[in-house]
Amino acid sequence: MIPNMNYASLKDSYLFYNIAQKTKAYMAEHPDKRLYRMGIGDVSLPLCPAVIQALHRAVDDQAAQETFHGYMPECGAPELREAIAGYYAGRGVQLALEDVFVSSGASDELGDILDILGREKRVLIMEPAYPAYVDANIIAGNDIVRVSSCREDGFLTLPDPSLRADIIYICSPNNPTGAVFSRAHLRAWVDYANQIGAVILFDAAYEAFIEDEDIAHSIYEIDGAKTCAIEISSLSKTAGFTGTRFGYTVIPRELERGGLSLNAMWVRNRTTKTNGVSYIIQKGAAAVFTPEGQHEIRENISVYKRNAAYLMAALDTLGIWYCGGKNAPYIWLQCPDSMGSWEFFDYLLHEIQVVGTPGEGFGSAGEGYFRFSTFGAPADTEEAARRLVSLLGGQGGRAR
Amino acid sequence: MIPNMNYASLKDSYLFYNIAQKTKAYMAEHPDKRLYRMGIGDVSLPLCPAVIQALHRAVDDQAAQETFHGYMPECGAPELREAIAGYYAGRGVQLALEDVFVSSGASDELGDILDILGREKRVLIMEPAYPAYVDANIIAGNDIVRVSSCREDGFLTLPDPSLRADIIYICSPNNPTGAVFSRAHLRAWVDYANQIGAVILFDAAYEAFIEDEDIAHSIYEIDGAKTCAIEISSLSKTAGFTGTRFGYTVIPRELERGGLSLNAMWVRNRTTKTNGVSYIIQKGAAAVFTPEGQHEIRENISVYKRNAAYLMAALDTLGIWYCGGKNAPYIWLQCPDSMGSWEFFDYLLHEIQVVGTPGEGFGSAGEGYFRFSTFGAPADTEEAARRLVSLLGGQGGRAR
Repeated sequence: MIPNMNYASLKDSYLFYNIAQKTKAYMAEHPDKRLYRMGIGDVSLPLCPAVIQALHRAVDDQAAQETFHGYMPECGAPELREAIAGYYAGRGVQLALEDVFVSSGASDELGDILDILGREKRVLIMEPAYPAYVDANIIAGNDIVRVSSCREDGFLTLPDPSLRADIIYICSPNNPTGAVFSRAHLRAWVDYANQIGAVILFDAAYEAFIEDEDIAHSIYEIDGAKTCAIEISSLSKTAGFTGTRFGYTVIPRELERGGLSLNAMWVRNRTTKTNGVSYIIQKGAAAVFTPEGQHEIRENISVYKRNAAYLMAALDTLGIWYCGGKNAPYIWLQCPDSMGSWEFFDYLLHEIQVVGTPGEGFGSAGEGYFRFSTFGAPADTEEAARRLVSLLGGQGGRAR
Repeated sequence: MIPNMNYASLKDSYLFYNIAQKTKAYMAEHPDKRLYRMGIGDVSLPLCPAVIQALHRAVDDQAAQETFHGYMPECGAPELREAIAGYYAGRGVQLALEDVFVSSGASDELGDILDILGREKRVLIMEPAYPAYVDANIIAGNDIVRVSSCREDGFLTLPDPSLRADIIYICSPNNPTGAVFSRAHLRAWVDYANQIGAVILFDAAYEAFIEDEDIAHSIYEIDGAKTCAIEISSLSKTAGFTGTRFGYTVIPRELERGGLSLNAMWVRNRTTKTNGVSYIIQKGAAAVFTPEGQHEIRENISVYKRNAAYLMAALDTLGIWYCGGKNAPYIWLQCPDSMGSWEFFDYLLHEIQVVGTPGEGFGSAGEGYFRFSTFGAPADTEEAARRLVSLLGGQGGRAR
């Protein structure tokens, strides 16, 4: 038998491998140096106390016959789905618990959800983009339409009415650029999707980092989104669940294509192909949606926001163009002196031991740009910002 | 856009819904009665102490910055993959840690794995079967070849050389029949698969219930299996993880089709579409593979084995034909007096308040048969066995 040959069309992703190899080689040559890691998207702060307590209680439940939980409902514990719907209600979005599905995280859902959308689809991906969007669609055999954004449009593209698509990926706040779509931008995309019958996959993994009151946290804050959008979210960055794994997905019952309810299709997918998310993890996640949990995760987010402030102040001082940082945990900057992404990477590594992510790793539209994550340790981030100013400040930049 | 219309070809699965409706209606009419549930495949015993301790320690790790774990390796923590390879070594099967992948459970993997095998495949499913095998392949648009087994062949089919297939599902010990393939049977399937280039998906979720020394726990105990089989296993029944969620999958590096390594394809699938299994759950699972964990799960399994003994003794007394029970946690019996599956279900519910699973729910080959699970509470199982003998014993059976 011939397997899924689309896998043979995948390009090897060397981004994080190359970063690891380069830093390893540098450290082998300079064992006395210390690295300041602003590259990875992983968090550094532990889970908050409310979550830890809930997890311990759930483990205890699993230890005794009277409180033991076997198979969970495949789409999530009803009380947790209700709590997530309540979280949306706090933003003015009315959802029933049936609209909400729990998951093991946004990356898992972004791959799995393509199953209900079918094959041979035309998929619009705005680059720079999270590389897994592209790879998951190559695996599915879909036709990928890449739309490039740039500094001039603030890394925020508007729909091109001459383009046709079945599926549209939107990530806002964006990874890697940190750019955030305005309500007007989102309305343009929702109207376009409804008009052409496309489905928007809205990646809302970074919504908790939004500060500005006029920015939408959910695409369902835009009228008409319930008939064209699936929203995929996560506690990975919101509550430090990168290694604990929990996310949630909204598929409104209003969303139909080809006479089928996508919500009902997803119910069938989950009940056929999964046995639900771990009881223990669901209990930990539920604690995030309590008042105590919300207060505690806000404290962690404010630490990352201080990290962003250190880095933004440095870039402001240096007059380097960037976007993100304010409503997003990523800062996307233009490499100074027309340096290429990897050239700038090498320069920062060798000169000041600061590790970031070359923009070219997020598609060719990212060449000449660079991503800083704000999820690092605060002392390291502050020192990285100081070193940036010291290296790039004054006249001459790299030439000095 | 038109979604995956294969979903419209799925039949609604009424099996467990109908069981729930019928028992609910009965209890509404007879609120004073107590049910003896031998129907569901869920476990009743809590997690063992070694696992509970490991889970608590892992939760504590997530509470402090120094021990906090973010993103896990997508294919599993290396030490856990190594421990699972060690478990196989105990059965004489040599695997490298790269052959082993951790998962959130067998049902999740059985659905996901089809992604690397591609579309429009000819899939051989032996019925009676776990209904999700069929549904996952309808969703994938595959061509399903159903092969029926029966009492005469002990519910164990051998390959038909005139049949062609790309994918072959084998579940041994079997759900729902409890039948177990001998080494000779498995060798016939392995030889057949290698000959025609098919891939066997071997569902080993119940291997821990095997008692007979000459029965293979893993398909890799059969020469040649590494070039034709993927083995999917789970801690759900082995260690009570139905609600905690953990499984593992073996894809030997020797397994290639169409010039591609299925192992490398699965690595790419996992790294693209997931961010790995929860750190906490992996730590709990790792405790199962310690000597202490193995001892404790054996104690739980022996409780379920006593349940099987109660039910088998009752059926022996009654002279009712059955298979399973000895090397499997399911007992599959022929309904007495030529009753149909649902007829027998109603009869047991109304007469002795014992709830089982009608065989017809596992495909038409199951009509006239009935499944008992041995995962219930021991006192309930003992009482159910007593009631069966009392109801069906003596002359005349149902006519009395």
